[in-house]
Amino acid sequence: MGRAIQLAKRGWYTTQPNPRVGCVLVKDGEIVGEGYHRRAGELHAERNALADAGEAARGATAYVTLEPCCHQGRTPPCTEGLIEAGVKRVVAAMTDPNPKVAGKGFEQLKQAGIEVVSGVLETQAAALNPGFIKRMRQGLPYVRCKMGMSLDGRTAMANGESQWITSAESRVDVHKLRAASNAILTGVGTLLADDPSMNVRISHSELGIDEDLQIPGPVRVVLDPQLQTPASARMLNLPGQTLVVCSDDNPTHGIALEAAGAQVVTVPAVEQGLDLHEVLQFLADQEINEILLESGATLAGAMLEQGLVDELIIYQAPHLMGDSARGLFRLPGIQQMSQRLSLNITDVRQIGPDIRITATPRINEDKPRFRS
Amino acid sequence: MGRAIQLAKRGWYTTQPNPRVGCVLVKDGEIVGEGYHRRAGELHAERNALADAGEAARGATAYVTLEPCCHQGRTPPCTEGLIEAGVKRVVAAMTDPNPKVAGKGFEQLKQAGIEVVSGVLETQAAALNPGFIKRMRQGLPYVRCKMGMSLDGRTAMANGESQWITSAESRVDVHKLRAASNAILTGVGTLLADDPSMNVRISHSELGIDEDLQIPGPVRVVLDPQLQTPASARMLNLPGQTLVVCSDDNPTHGIALEAAGAQVVTVPAVEQGLDLHEVLQFLADQEINEILLESGATLAGAMLEQGLVDELIIYQAPHLMGDSARGLFRLPGIQQMSQRLSLNITDVRQIGPDIRITATPRINEDKPRFRS
Repeated sequence: MGRAIQLAKRGWYTTQPNPRVGCVLVKDGEIVGEGYHRRAGELHAERNALADAGEAARGATAYVTLEPCCHQGRTPPCTEGLIEAGVKRVVAAMTDPNPKVAGKGFEQLKQAGIEVVSGVLETQAAALNPGFIKRMRQGLPYVRCKMGMSLDGRTAMANGESQWITSAESRVDVHKLRAASNAILTGVGTLLADDPSMNVRISHSELGIDEDLQIPGPVRVVLDPQLQTPASARMLNLPGQTLVVCSDDNPTHGIALEAAGAQVVTVPAVEQGLDLHEVLQFLADQEINEILLESGATLAGAMLEQGLVDELIIYQAPHLMGDSARGLFRLPGIQQMSQRLSLNITDVRQIGPDIRITATPRINEDKPRFRS
Repeated sequence: MGRAIQLAKRGWYTTQPNPRVGCVLVKDGEIVGEGYHRRAGELHAERNALADAGEAARGATAYVTLEPCCHQGRTPPCTEGLIEAGVKRVVAAMTDPNPKVAGKGFEQLKQAGIEVVSGVLETQAAALNPGFIKRMRQGLPYVRCKMGMSLDGRTAMANGESQWITSAESRVDVHKLRAASNAILTGVGTLLADDPSMNVRISHSELGIDEDLQIPGPVRVVLDPQLQTPASARMLNLPGQTLVVCSDDNPTHGIALEAAGAQVVTVPAVEQGLDLHEVLQFLADQEINEILLESGATLAGAMLEQGLVDELIIYQAPHLMGDSARGLFRLPGIQQMSQRLSLNITDVRQIGPDIRITATPRINEDKPRFRS
C-alpha cells in the first residue's frame, strides 16, 4: 500500500477534479503490475495497473488507495475491470468518501467472489485527497491559507510595500502549492494593490513530474462585491480562467469584465461583503477540490473566523519589520485571550533561509466556527 | 576537549561573573583527572582537575576550554598549579578574551617548558561564555531578548491581556534562561502593567545540576527614567537584588525606593529616555555577563535598533490573536522594506506545543547599528 500511495502522488498536480489514486498488483509476493491516475478523462489507477500486469493479474491481489469505482464515468467502472481480469483479492486504503456511493464498489467485488479488505494506511491515503474528500462529504473545497511574514508577524510595511518578504526558495514552494490547487482565491483589495498574476510559474522538473503531463493550472478567483476589478487587470491577459465573484445586489453585471475575458458570477451579499460559505459552495459545485487562499488580512481573517480555512501555511522570513507594519489576520471577533483561535502545528521545516509552519485550526466544540 | 566542554557546562548556572571552564588531564591515552569551575570564589577548573589527578598529573596533557589564568585573583593562578604539578602539555580551546591578558598565561607555561596548543574546538568553547567574552572584549554584556508570541506575531490583546501566551513547557524553558542570566532587564511600563516577579522558579533537577550548587539568581533591572516604580512593587519583596535605573535629571533620587530595598542608579538621559548603551556599560562594570531582556515592544525595539541585542529567543504559541493585538517590537526607524532588520536563524525546536526560534541580528556593514 505504501507503494500504491507513492504512485498516487505522481498525479499530485494533474488528476483534479478526480482523486489521486495509485494501485499495485501483487502475486506470489511479487509486484506484477502498477499504475496511477494521471489526469481526468484518462484511465483510473486500477485500469493502468491491470494493463501493466496483463495476464499476470489473474489470481493477484490489488492494493488500491481508494475504493474502486462502480459507476460509468468518463471511463468504464474499475470494479468490472478487476472482476474480468480475475483478481482474487482487493485491499483498499479507504472507502469512497461520497456517502451516496461509499461501499458499493466493495459490494460489487464481493458479489463476484473477490475478497475485500479496507482501512489499510487509511490516514496516509486520505492525505492524498483532502479536497476531494471534503467536497464529497461536505460539499465544500479544502482551503489552504498561505501567508508570508517576517519573524515578528508582518506581511507588509505600513505604506503597503511587501515585495519580497520571503525568499526565492519559499516562492518556488508557493508555486508548488499553486500547481496542486484547483483555484487561487483572493480579494479585490489585493488585486487593486498588487495587480497579481496568480498563475503557476514552475517547471515540471521542479515539480518532479513527467514532462508530458499537462498541469491544468488553478482558476483565479477574485472576491469583488462591488465589481471594482479593472478590465486592464494583469491576470485577465494571462492564460487560464479568471472568475470574478460579485454580490447579487450589484447593478453593473460586469459586462466590461466579461468582455475582457473574466467570468462573472454573483452570490448573495451579507453585511461584511459576500457570503463566503456560498462562494465556497459554488466553487465546490464547479468541482474545485483544493483552494489556495492568497489574500490580505481582511479576507483571510474572515475565512478563519467563519471556520472555512482547513490549513495554514506560514512562511516566516528571518527579518523584523516592527509593529507599525501590517499583520496577517484581521480577527475582529477576538477581543480577549479566551477567544483566540487555537491551532495544531502539523509541520515545521526550513525552506531556504525561511521557516515554513503548517497548522490546522483546532475546532472548539463549545464555539463552533463551522456553519452547520 | 569535548569532555572538557561537557564538564564546563555543569557550571552553566553558577560561575558568574567568572567564565564556565572545564579541564581534563590525560596520560598515556587515559583520563587521570577532570574538573570544572563551579562558582566564583571556588577553585578553577584546572585546580579541580589537578586535585582529582593527584600525582598522576605529572607528565599529563591538560585539555582546558580557556587559557589558564596567570594572575592572583580570589584563587591562586592556574598556570602555577599546572607547572608545579609537572603537566607536560596544555591544549586550550581559546585564549583569554581580555585583550590585556590574552596570551600571557600561555607565555608563562611555555617559559616553564610546557608545550602549548590553542584553538581546539574554539567555536564550541566560545559558546560556553558569550557574556564573559563580550564583556572582556567590548565592555558590554551579552543580551538575549526573549519574546512569547502567537503564531501571528502578537504578545498581548489590545487591552493588555497577555497571560499566558505560551505553554507551561515554554515557561520552564524561560526559567532556565533566567537561571543562566546575571540580570533580567525590563522597562517600567512592563512593571506597571504586570507587576512581575522576575525571579527564578525552577528546581535543581529541572536544571540538571548538583543539588548543593547555589544558583546566584539574576539581578532584576528596571529602566525607569522618571522613577515611577512604586515602593509596593512585588519584586522588591522577593529575595535577590533589584536595581532601578533612572535618568540623571530626575529630582526625586528614589529615596522611597531605596527604603523599600531597591538600589537606585542614574544614567544620562537622551531624547527617547535613558542612554541604553550607558546602562549596559554600567551593568558590565558590575560584572554582569549575560542579560535576559524581558520587556515590552518599546524597550525591546529600542535595544534592537541600537544594535544592543545579541540573540533573540522567540516562543511561538499555536494560536492566532488577530491584528488588533499588540506586536513584538516597536521599530520606528524602519519605514521601508530595505530598512528591515535581518536575522540569522540559529535554532528552531519544539517546546511542548510551542515552537522556539533562536536568531541573531545580522550586522549590516553599510548601516552599522552598533555604536563604535
